Amino acid sequence: MSSFDIDAIEQACQRLINRFALYNDMGQFEQLAALFAEDGAFARPTTPDDFIVGRAAILESFTSRPGGKVTRHLLSNTVIDVQDADHATAISYVTQYSANPDSPAKFGLKANPTQLVGEYYDSFVRTAEGWKFAKRSGRVSITAE
Amino acid sequence: MSSFDIDAIEQACQRLINRFALYNDMGQFEQLAALFAEDGAFARPTTPDDFIVGRAAILESFTSRPGGKVTRHLLSNTVIDVQDADHATAISYVTQYSANPDSPAKFGLKANPTQLVGEYYDSFVRTAEGWKFAKRSGRVSITAE
Amino acid sequence: MSSFDIDAIEQACQRLINRFALYNDMGQFEQLAALFAEDGAFARPTTPDDFIVGRAAILESFTSRPGGKVTRHLLSNTVIDVQDADHATAISYVTQYSANPDSPAKFGLKANPTQLVGEYYDSFVRTAEGWKFAKRSGRVSITAE
Repeated sequence: MSSFDIDAIEQACQRLINRFALYNDMGQFEQLAALFAEDGAFARPTTPDDFIVGRAAILESFTSRPGGKVTRHLLSNTVIDVQDADHATAISYVTQYSANPDSPAKFGLKANPTQLVGEYYDSFVRTAEGWKFAKRSGRVSITAE
Repeated sequence: MSSFDIDAIEQACQRLINRFALYNDMGQFEQLAALFAEDGAFARPTTPDDFIVGRAAILESFTSRPGGKVTRHLLSNTVIDVQDADHATAISYVTQYSANPDSPAKFGLKANPTQLVGEYYDSFVRTAEGWKFAKRSGRVSITAE
Repeated sequence: MSSFDIDAIEQACQRLINRFALYNDMGQFEQLAALFAEDGAFARPTTPDDFIVGRAAILESFTSRPGGKVTRHLLSNTVIDVQDADHATAISYVTQYSANPDSPAKFGLKANPTQLVGEYYDSFVRTAEGWKFAKRSGRVSITAE
């Protein structure tokens, strides 16, 4: 692979990581699920050993959650390793702020007192539909209050 | 457009987003205003419906503000959609820390108790001077204290 | 240089910045030191005028620190300026969370009460081993509690 190919793969994977956070926070769960390969697997940072397998099951796991909590998942400093033209892995950092929709502040909503700082561990695969998450899990490392 | 073209456009737009934050925090307002198209429009996150139109007016709005507050606008997880070779849109997250210059801490300044978490909504246009903000507005979603 | 060359250089430098944070937090100090040029220099954000010179000395400065503190260095909005095909500079923002390993929380560890927000100032050089830090220093701008 050329360095330009590697750059392009990293950019494609970064795009998936950033879109996951946005779709999650905005409640766009169909679009979130479509970031995974058809047989992709996902485990939440708060339950890192509990993998949900398959795009349909991942969608169901998001749409069936009790709604109402507003979240912002701030993604930072992704490190990507490209294994070959069809496979890559990444570690990225995530900081989650949340708020209840019935707690107005002067600007926006009043944050819940706890922020969670953690990581996502990803593997990616190039499919006929482009780059997708093959497997994504998370872990909370630090809880700030 | 090739995928390399799309990658390059996304990188150009990310550059504008990151530079806006740095120039804002460092008080480099001429450089900040030059990130906008000549007829670009900007609305602050705390007044999201109040658009300032034109590079000169945007510059004036920054230079006429009372100074003194130190800020850091942390930008994260930008999601960019490229419409065509000359137009793109983006959503990015921003977390603002601030401090008063007369409040020293052991390291740097003591933060004001409030952090603002929100988003920027951008549209970009390719001009004769390169990619520029056509329209940028912001919104505060969560206030953390 | 073409715009594609500039994009590639920026991506290479961003990679160094992100990897420094990860290797630092994960205790992978050999890999961290290898991000510097053989004669590279580094000054910590909390001691910004105290440069450690040379890859070996940088490694020693990390391995000889008292261990135990868990950190997460969140990197955001890097702005890179490419001087020529072999030299570039950057400013990036960093937010440091830390925790003691013997302070469990419901999820992960309980954060220390202080977060540090600051910047890294970098210069990069292209070497026979690829892009490396020539000089990196940091500064804490805001302490949040």
